[in-house]
Amino acid sequence: MASTLHGKDILRTDPLTDAELDLILSTAAHFERELDSGQHANRMAGQVMAAMFFEPSTRTRLSFEAAMHRLGGDVITIADPKTSSAVKGESMGDAVRVIEGYADVIVMRRPRKGSAQEAADAVSIPVINGGDGAGQHPTQALLDTYTIQKEQGALDGLTVALAGDLKNGRTVHSLAYVLARFDTELIFVSPPQLRMPARITDGLREMGVTVIETEGLADAVQESDVLYMTRIQKERFEDPEEYERLKGAYVLDSAMLELARPTITIMHPLPRVNEIKPEVDAHPGAAYFRQAHNGVPIRMALLALVTGRN
Amino acid sequence: MASTLHGKDILRTDPLTDAELDLILSTAAHFERELDSGQHANRMAGQVMAAMFFEPSTRTRLSFEAAMHRLGGDVITIADPKTSSAVKGESMGDAVRVIEGYADVIVMRRPRKGSAQEAADAVSIPVINGGDGAGQHPTQALLDTYTIQKEQGALDGLTVALAGDLKNGRTVHSLAYVLARFDTELIFVSPPQLRMPARITDGLREMGVTVIETEGLADAVQESDVLYMTRIQKERFEDPEEYERLKGAYVLDSAMLELARPTITIMHPLPRVNEIKPEVDAHPGAAYFRQAHNGVPIRMALLALVTGRN
Amino acid sequence: MASTLHGKDILRTDPLTDAELDLILSTAAHFERELDSGQHANRMAGQVMAAMFFEPSTRTRLSFEAAMHRLGGDVITIADPKTSSAVKGESMGDAVRVIEGYADVIVMRRPRKGSAQEAADAVSIPVINGGDGAGQHPTQALLDTYTIQKEQGALDGLTVALAGDLKNGRTVHSLAYVLARFDTELIFVSPPQLRMPARITDGLREMGVTVIETEGLADAVQESDVLYMTRIQKERFEDPEEYERLKGAYVLDSAMLELARPTITIMHPLPRVNEIKPEVDAHPGAAYFRQAHNGVPIRMALLALVTGRN
Repeated sequence: MASTLHGKDILRTDPLTDAELDLILSTAAHFERELDSGQHANRMAGQVMAAMFFEPSTRTRLSFEAAMHRLGGDVITIADPKTSSAVKGESMGDAVRVIEGYADVIVMRRPRKGSAQEAADAVSIPVINGGDGAGQHPTQALLDTYTIQKEQGALDGLTVALAGDLKNGRTVHSLAYVLARFDTELIFVSPPQLRMPARITDGLREMGVTVIETEGLADAVQESDVLYMTRIQKERFEDPEEYERLKGAYVLDSAMLELARPTITIMHPLPRVNEIKPEVDAHPGAAYFRQAHNGVPIRMALLALVTGRN
Repeated sequence: MASTLHGKDILRTDPLTDAELDLILSTAAHFERELDSGQHANRMAGQVMAAMFFEPSTRTRLSFEAAMHRLGGDVITIADPKTSSAVKGESMGDAVRVIEGYADVIVMRRPRKGSAQEAADAVSIPVINGGDGAGQHPTQALLDTYTIQKEQGALDGLTVALAGDLKNGRTVHSLAYVLARFDTELIFVSPPQLRMPARITDGLREMGVTVIETEGLADAVQESDVLYMTRIQKERFEDPEEYERLKGAYVLDSAMLELARPTITIMHPLPRVNEIKPEVDAHPGAAYFRQAHNGVPIRMALLALVTGRN
Repeated sequence: MASTLHGKDILRTDPLTDAELDLILSTAAHFERELDSGQHANRMAGQVMAAMFFEPSTRTRLSFEAAMHRLGGDVITIADPKTSSAVKGESMGDAVRVIEGYADVIVMRRPRKGSAQEAADAVSIPVINGGDGAGQHPTQALLDTYTIQKEQGALDGLTVALAGDLKNGRTVHSLAYVLARFDTELIFVSPPQLRMPARITDGLREMGVTVIETEGLADAVQESDVLYMTRIQKERFEDPEEYERLKGAYVLDSAMLELARPTITIMHPLPRVNEIKPEVDAHPGAAYFRQAHNGVPIRMALLALVTGRN
């Protein structure tokens, strides 16, 4: 029987079966071809998505809103936490139960881990997690995976380097677990203070993934099919001087890329500050803007699948 | 001749004729059946609703926006008072006269009483009052009435208890006047400091309504077909200790409901804080979330009727 | 060959050829007739406009959003500068390159002069300047021109008075240059401190325009086919008493209009504070609200032309 996501929530990536992951990626590819050909399928005409953003995230919000509009649907948005009824002491469960009557699907972003699950438990319409703080950000992991597949032509047989702050980076944690489903070698590049947590590294190795840890960005660049850069934030360091000394070591420039494979794909969840020099933008493998754009077909796929309009 | 609301403003409930009230309720019921059957009538395609919210009210705003989208129409929104041209010293009349050229209908919420009337006087497109402070909130009263009709099957022959802060509650004032058009007995349940104003009680009695006033919630619960709870706000009390002593007396729980009629309908304008215990949510008569959801068909009816698109 | 604006940016008015200006005005007139006849052409169904307003401007934003909706298209909006990723240190080029993947056209308002050009340089989809501080506000100049053409029946052979703060008024600078393309006589009416900059007056005279400068509003009113009033802002004066003395001299009232030509057109970019007395609103030539409403067909024309959907 064909797998389906109709009526399901998208809260984390780990409960997705391989068939469901395949379905999301292939549906996104289908929608992207439709967009490219200028078709306007209007699948979700008359449907309403509620974007409940209790934490600012312009990029994720606009990407979801654009996805809904590309499907012919409409959007109602809470983007200012201060105007919400939460200030009147209302519980989150009550708030989403009201919205349930206004919309067909809820996209929620909230800084507290587990809040997307809590919302999903309260309502019977599908909830998509747009990021719950230290929890998950599944649509980012899915668009990252979609980007790798598109740029490299496949998800198996790749060496993927994740570089920067691997300790606090929710994005790289989720992505590592998704990639572990495929025949992937992972290289983790970070300063010692910002290493990938041992529980994740151990978990990945148990899943059969080859994991290499290193501090040197240049070496990783030479070995990788995909280089995923993340931002190193000053706030993460107790000693500001240590930050100043380290940050320069995790900046990608054109010189470093001269030794890379010609087919390398360079990714970044954006916004970047100075982890990737602007000179790199002209590299054919600089995929970070394409990666951001892939958020639209992936979110179209998720919205259409969970509402049964694919 | 059939009654019509085409081109009219919805500023208060009292000027509505009984035929107009009937038309609104029956149009809402029609739209709700359409929504339930998944039909997408697209009556307001190409039409624009301007939501001018000079006071935060996420719930009312989103409900109106969802209603407009369900009708196939579009929305332009002012939700942040600080970004409006009012800060440049512009009069409200000028502000709405500009918006008149952008939209087919205006929904306005503004804290000053009478501001919806002022806006309606300035423009020739219909204005719907989304709440004008101590003034009226007619769409809330209409969705409350629609809820009672749906839950109880009729509006005549009911005993309706309104409980909590009856002094400051704009919502219960408007609802009491609408119910007075029908064969209703009203029970007002409040602490002495928060009694229904005498001018309203007197007015209702002159309209032929039986009004009973009491301080005891438990007795009212036993006698009522409909129990409408409202929030008692700490700010209304000069003596905080008095608030603490009183608030417990106006909290509905499952034990209290054991003596209620089995067909009781429990309502609340939401957000609730702790006036209704979460355990009550499982009661078949707990209608407060259905009540909030009824805001969509009622607002669809109003938008379609005043623009002649019903 | 027919002129076209397909794929072009609208950043300033001066690079527009006369044929392009004609095309914009005639397309706007066409769309206005469609709107008046209740037609709903749905030209931009499935298309998305990104409104990036890094500076509050409710009027311009809502007018663009209404225009996009009237064309059947959808809108994604950034209206709160604080929620944007700019706060995380992202460059403007990066920000718009991300949005490029979400939308078909970008409308940008940003207080820094030249920022619309910078955005246009970064992306390949069309960018429309919604006002870049001391730079240009081309859509205002175009709707002003459209208004004069509609109200007076032609753009040639007119005497146009621009009154108020001509020194700082971006709007009147742009409008003067557009009018200089036609057979126009310009009267500049301002206090000495707020005169039209000499470089602009000189430039207009070099273009063959007759320019008269005066301090007296009453005389200009008598001589003009079109009187364009602007606001004199207190902040522009070092000496507050001088402001108080001067502001009264630039207030239009009914008495002053008794000596005007009966066919005079009175304009104002709005919001007005007290430059035009409310009593003037009843004058048949009081066109300022019609002028604001003309923003919709002009912006429809621009959106449809640059995306090739006209």
